[in-house]
Amino acid sequence: MKATHKETVAPAPVAAILDNYRSDNPGTRANLYRILMSGRLGGTGKLVILPVDQGFEHGPGRSFAVNPAGYDPEYHAQLALDAGCNAYAAPYGFIQHVAHEYAGRLPLILKLNSHDSLVSEKDPIPAQTASVKDALRLGCVGIGFTIYPGSSEWRSMYEQLRGLAEEAREAGLAVIVWSYPRGTALSKEGETAIDVAAYAAQIAAQMGAHIIKVKLPSAHLEKAEAKKVYESKNVPIASAADRVRHVVQSAFDGKRIVIFSGGSKQADDVVFEEVRAIRDGGGFGSIIGRNSFQRPHDEAVKFLHTIMDIYAGKID
Amino acid sequence: MKATHKETVAPAPVAAILDNYRSDNPGTRANLYRILMSGRLGGTGKLVILPVDQGFEHGPGRSFAVNPAGYDPEYHAQLALDAGCNAYAAPYGFIQHVAHEYAGRLPLILKLNSHDSLVSEKDPIPAQTASVKDALRLGCVGIGFTIYPGSSEWRSMYEQLRGLAEEAREAGLAVIVWSYPRGTALSKEGETAIDVAAYAAQIAAQMGAHIIKVKLPSAHLEKAEAKKVYESKNVPIASAADRVRHVVQSAFDGKRIVIFSGGSKQADDVVFEEVRAIRDGGGFGSIIGRNSFQRPHDEAVKFLHTIMDIYAGKID
Amino acid sequence: MKATHKETVAPAPVAAILDNYRSDNPGTRANLYRILMSGRLGGTGKLVILPVDQGFEHGPGRSFAVNPAGYDPEYHAQLALDAGCNAYAAPYGFIQHVAHEYAGRLPLILKLNSHDSLVSEKDPIPAQTASVKDALRLGCVGIGFTIYPGSSEWRSMYEQLRGLAEEAREAGLAVIVWSYPRGTALSKEGETAIDVAAYAAQIAAQMGAHIIKVKLPSAHLEKAEAKKVYESKNVPIASAADRVRHVVQSAFDGKRIVIFSGGSKQADDVVFEEVRAIRDGGGFGSIIGRNSFQRPHDEAVKFLHTIMDIYAGKID
Amino acid sequence: MKATHKETVAPAPVAAILDNYRSDNPGTRANLYRILMSGRLGGTGKLVILPVDQGFEHGPGRSFAVNPAGYDPEYHAQLALDAGCNAYAAPYGFIQHVAHEYAGRLPLILKLNSHDSLVSEKDPIPAQTASVKDALRLGCVGIGFTIYPGSSEWRSMYEQLRGLAEEAREAGLAVIVWSYPRGTALSKEGETAIDVAAYAAQIAAQMGAHIIKVKLPSAHLEKAEAKKVYESKNVPIASAADRVRHVVQSAFDGKRIVIFSGGSKQADDVVFEEVRAIRDGGGFGSIIGRNSFQRPHDEAVKFLHTIMDIYAGKID
Amino acid sequence: MKATHKETVAPAPVAAILDNYRSDNPGTRANLYRILMSGRLGGTGKLVILPVDQGFEHGPGRSFAVNPAGYDPEYHAQLALDAGCNAYAAPYGFIQHVAHEYAGRLPLILKLNSHDSLVSEKDPIPAQTASVKDALRLGCVGIGFTIYPGSSEWRSMYEQLRGLAEEAREAGLAVIVWSYPRGTALSKEGETAIDVAAYAAQIAAQMGAHIIKVKLPSAHLEKAEAKKVYESKNVPIASAADRVRHVVQSAFDGKRIVIFSGGSKQADDVVFEEVRAIRDGGGFGSIIGRNSFQRPHDEAVKFLHTIMDIYAGKID
Repeated sequence: MKATHKETVAPAPVAAILDNYRSDNPGTRANLYRILMSGRLGGTGKLVILPVDQGFEHGPGRSFAVNPAGYDPEYHAQLALDAGCNAYAAPYGFIQHVAHEYAGRLPLILKLNSHDSLVSEKDPIPAQTASVKDALRLGCVGIGFTIYPGSSEWRSMYEQLRGLAEEAREAGLAVIVWSYPRGTALSKEGETAIDVAAYAAQIAAQMGAHIIKVKLPSAHLEKAEAKKVYESKNVPIASAADRVRHVVQSAFDGKRIVIFSGGSKQADDVVFEEVRAIRDGGGFGSIIGRNSFQRPHDEAVKFLHTIMDIYAGKID
Repeated sequence: MKATHKETVAPAPVAAILDNYRSDNPGTRANLYRILMSGRLGGTGKLVILPVDQGFEHGPGRSFAVNPAGYDPEYHAQLALDAGCNAYAAPYGFIQHVAHEYAGRLPLILKLNSHDSLVSEKDPIPAQTASVKDALRLGCVGIGFTIYPGSSEWRSMYEQLRGLAEEAREAGLAVIVWSYPRGTALSKEGETAIDVAAYAAQIAAQMGAHIIKVKLPSAHLEKAEAKKVYESKNVPIASAADRVRHVVQSAFDGKRIVIFSGGSKQADDVVFEEVRAIRDGGGFGSIIGRNSFQRPHDEAVKFLHTIMDIYAGKID
Repeated sequence: MKATHKETVAPAPVAAILDNYRSDNPGTRANLYRILMSGRLGGTGKLVILPVDQGFEHGPGRSFAVNPAGYDPEYHAQLALDAGCNAYAAPYGFIQHVAHEYAGRLPLILKLNSHDSLVSEKDPIPAQTASVKDALRLGCVGIGFTIYPGSSEWRSMYEQLRGLAEEAREAGLAVIVWSYPRGTALSKEGETAIDVAAYAAQIAAQMGAHIIKVKLPSAHLEKAEAKKVYESKNVPIASAADRVRHVVQSAFDGKRIVIFSGGSKQADDVVFEEVRAIRDGGGFGSIIGRNSFQRPHDEAVKFLHTIMDIYAGKID
Repeated sequence: MKATHKETVAPAPVAAILDNYRSDNPGTRANLYRILMSGRLGGTGKLVILPVDQGFEHGPGRSFAVNPAGYDPEYHAQLALDAGCNAYAAPYGFIQHVAHEYAGRLPLILKLNSHDSLVSEKDPIPAQTASVKDALRLGCVGIGFTIYPGSSEWRSMYEQLRGLAEEAREAGLAVIVWSYPRGTALSKEGETAIDVAAYAAQIAAQMGAHIIKVKLPSAHLEKAEAKKVYESKNVPIASAADRVRHVVQSAFDGKRIVIFSGGSKQADDVVFEEVRAIRDGGGFGSIIGRNSFQRPHDEAVKFLHTIMDIYAGKID
Repeated sequence: MKATHKETVAPAPVAAILDNYRSDNPGTRANLYRILMSGRLGGTGKLVILPVDQGFEHGPGRSFAVNPAGYDPEYHAQLALDAGCNAYAAPYGFIQHVAHEYAGRLPLILKLNSHDSLVSEKDPIPAQTASVKDALRLGCVGIGFTIYPGSSEWRSMYEQLRGLAEEAREAGLAVIVWSYPRGTALSKEGETAIDVAAYAAQIAAQMGAHIIKVKLPSAHLEKAEAKKVYESKNVPIASAADRVRHVVQSAFDGKRIVIFSGGSKQADDVVFEEVRAIRDGGGFGSIIGRNSFQRPHDEAVKFLHTIMDIYAGKID
């Protein structure tokens, strides 16, 4: 069979994903394409992204003392390249430092807001620390933005996201939303409850996120009204793969890219198990920071390759 | 008798309604015309609109688990088309996803603000989640905006609406206002009291709404000063039709389109009874979400057709 | 004696008033001229204005049930024309509905802010509900704006007024300020105290109001520091006419147009007595809402004509 | 000796002062020149300014009942001309009313913010009541702005001043700052303490004020850290002249024009004694409101002439 | 060996530093070059900057009475020139006064925000007192901005910095950030804790600062999560030089210029000892205010020369 024109444009899994973004303009679609076609998973429709915002979020010593090479912003961009990640996400300073050499070679995602941990807030809201104009000047493929659904400051975050997302879309950038439930409206357990995680994914999708990052949820059900429906309708949430499936379903029935975050450093087996659940539940991939850059370089590359191979179906 | 030029422009009921919008510019009148001429009720001067903002307002599982087809944004736009609704209203993500195919075929209303239910506020105010520019880019006929008269945050909402409505009017869009009394200034019963509902309609009309959505009110009278007048003047509020009539009167003596919302899922008979009251009281139609999309597709179409037939006078 | 050119431009009382606005631009002077030359009192230097903002401020039933013709926005504009009022003032919805036919025939004043009575605030501040651009598009002669001196929110109101008044002046519109003392800084009696009313007029004049609307004050003295001066200097405040004279004096020694509001519906004799006091104290006229539109049409016309005749000196 | 070109441009004392403003643009220098060359003290390097903001700040009756001619805004502009003041400062309404005739003949300073005394605040902040654009349109030489260092609202005032001062400088206007310490951070005595007054002058100078108005300070030392230094370094603050000298020193070592306010109406001898202290301490002049306009016209002129003669060295 | 073209462009230490700013535009790089090439340390890659913001921050008497020459803004600019400092930093008034003569001859840094000490706040935030436009008009090489990480007002400061830094970069100015941990989230000891100082440097770097000013930290560890890592990883923090090294490492592994402040006036030996620690730990220099301008001129020059000689390796 002869290849059609369409087939030459993008591998089938990527074309299928892009088809869900057909109301977006060519600029944004081009940047989604760049992310989906980069790195070792390029063309598979799966993604592994390296995010390094812990210097800002947790402090430099706490983040990098374990592997001091990480104090240097170039280390991370090079690690992302070496491991074949689809993209690299970080705050302004880290991205700005490496953009001169890495923009173009590596899809860069500029995180536009950050929260340090000197002040701890029960109802947190990050500060905007970079702009869409910055992302354009630095050759990025997209912007990153964190919202904390459940915080009493939800409105300010959503409205800030709305404005920046509109500006980003007009400039042909992709919008990546970190949707992390948090705040006094939620119990500690509720922050990762399945109903809440699904809700967080839905909100990000409704706000116009092209890629949604959530935490791998637990089987806990937080909100009474939701619990009633989940139980009466027997929504399957017993296994991690079930829960991934429900979150993906909650992001427009799988029509938005949903990736899952790795959390703090864990044993390899635990991580690989989670990756299999994401794969089995129809998730689009992982975004893995501390589990990557807090290891020695070569170990990190090997670790990320294993994850990518699970997604690619090369290993089980 | 030969048809006059005017008669060829719009059916009489539509022409009569548009005559009440003669201070509006041709762009806005064109979009009101599109809404009034679309679907099964097109040309009758009556409307049934499908709104689907529950994914954002109540969460995805709670809204769509009962009819999982609804996780997919395309389901709702197609349902609105299949049932012959006059328009379809939803938040940014849902509208953006379907605009590529549905804009033009189906009048789209972009809801510009939303409130999730992770945080519950006694004096609520939604977040702005989309813009007038979005509505234009996505080929919508109008914008939707929710205000909560009675909330201590009333001023912020009214001023946000004012700015967006001005921008929408200048762009030739229609302005649809969800006017839902709520907040610590009102008792629970007061949220649907007839004096409060009439007041909510008046406020929306004074703010420049072209179409006003309120809840079907009860016979309760909430505010002492109003109660005194309603009782001394014997304002008829005993039947549901009486109350619809009073709300319509309160929206510039019937010179603004007032439609009534369906609320949570109810038995068919109850809904049909309400529709008859709306019709008999001179209401312009219904806006029905959960009662539609939480049923299986074909049942929903049949259910909506029955409602439309009551409005059209085809059945009683 | 031959008429001079100046005499042909404007009747003497109007020319004398306009002479106090000589730092204003021709556009604003033209609109003040239109107000002063319209209706039955045109050319006399006296004014009676019909304001209908009660639908928004008090609710539709409470305002219009007594004379249901008033639910219809056209009723009021026509009443203002029929009675020969100098101008008609109302919020956006009411003005927008009638502007298509009445702009030009009847001087329209667009009220730019409003406060509903669903929420009651001890230190009130209205919401901005229309813009200067709206006033221009709708063919209005001026904007109306309410401030509540004495409210802890005074600063926000004054600053909002400042911006809108500047914009209005640049566009050649007249600025009409409703200056109603209210808030926790004042006793209930203090809201209409003569020192407070005079202060409210001064503030409006200093903020750049062309026409100032205050309530008819009582002989009460509210503020200790003021009381000391009023008493030691024997400022005459015993009669209603005395108090009108002092308020007018406090508005730049009579160089700003000050009109007085009618308050809730009262017996005709009481109103006429007040009008005589305004006339005798050198006030410029009345602004009468509920006492007009809450009567049957013809009775209202007759009632307003009597008031105008008192101002015109046709009857005593 | 032949006059040099420079000597013909400005009298030596004025040239010396202008030399301290050499980083300013020609427009601002021209307006400082106008102020310094106007009136009876023109060319001496000393100033007496008439400010009339009490109608807004204290109310009309309390301010003008003692000399009712003052209700009329023209009275004050004419008084400033008759007495030969260097400039006249007032809020929008008063300036706007007289600008038509007085702009050009009399340097006008538009006060851009005001605070009424209906509401009393422990940590006060005025409302902005006029704009730089107003000052330009009305032919003013400068803007006036009040800050209350020590108020918890300090930041808002400083930032508002910053923006307006920048706009004024760009338009070639002079910036006159009323720097009045006030607020819960200060004791009552501390509001006029010498360390606080000197600090207030420094802040105004650092913010870019061209002319600084402070109150004549007492010998009290308010802040512990400052007290320690004043006492250990024996900063001379015993006499009024000493304190004036220290305040002037604190305004860039005498390189900014500092003038002192008169306060409430006082016996002539007290005022003249203060003026001598200002002169002896190297102050640049006075700004005298109530002590001027609360006297009969001719008495006020004579009173102001005596003050000017003390500054000019004509009498002791 | 023949000099290459590159070597003629900048001395090696300066070229090496500029290489870390290669994502910056030529305008910003030019201004960093000017700072690094000015004064006695020009070309060495080390800096000593004279900052004088104490008139605003602590008051004039408290700051200048000990050396009254300092009341005059010209004194400081001349002192910076006489001592051969790399740059001079001050608030608007001080910079504006000297810019006419000193801009060009001396790199000027305009501090854009300041906090007076009349009001004391537990969670402080300065007021913006100058603009990027001011910095350009006055011929400055960069802007200065203070943030207080740890203050509950952190978000407002970071967002204000973000906007101003973006504007400054676009205009080719350098961004110098004073990063001073302070606020209720920190113990008194924690304000200078090593983990907190390192975090403060990281935040400034991530926000885009080109030069970062921090206080010399103590060996205290403030935050429990950080303490755990510092201790388990044996991060060396015992000596002052160790701590400087860790702070420099925390500013992108030495790829951002970090300088250390002097604090209140101290004995010479103590200061010189600190300077040696900064040098030995790889710090880029000092920013020394009170220890300079509170001494007599010639003594200050000699004192600063000694510090510079330590940095230049001329003395130990």
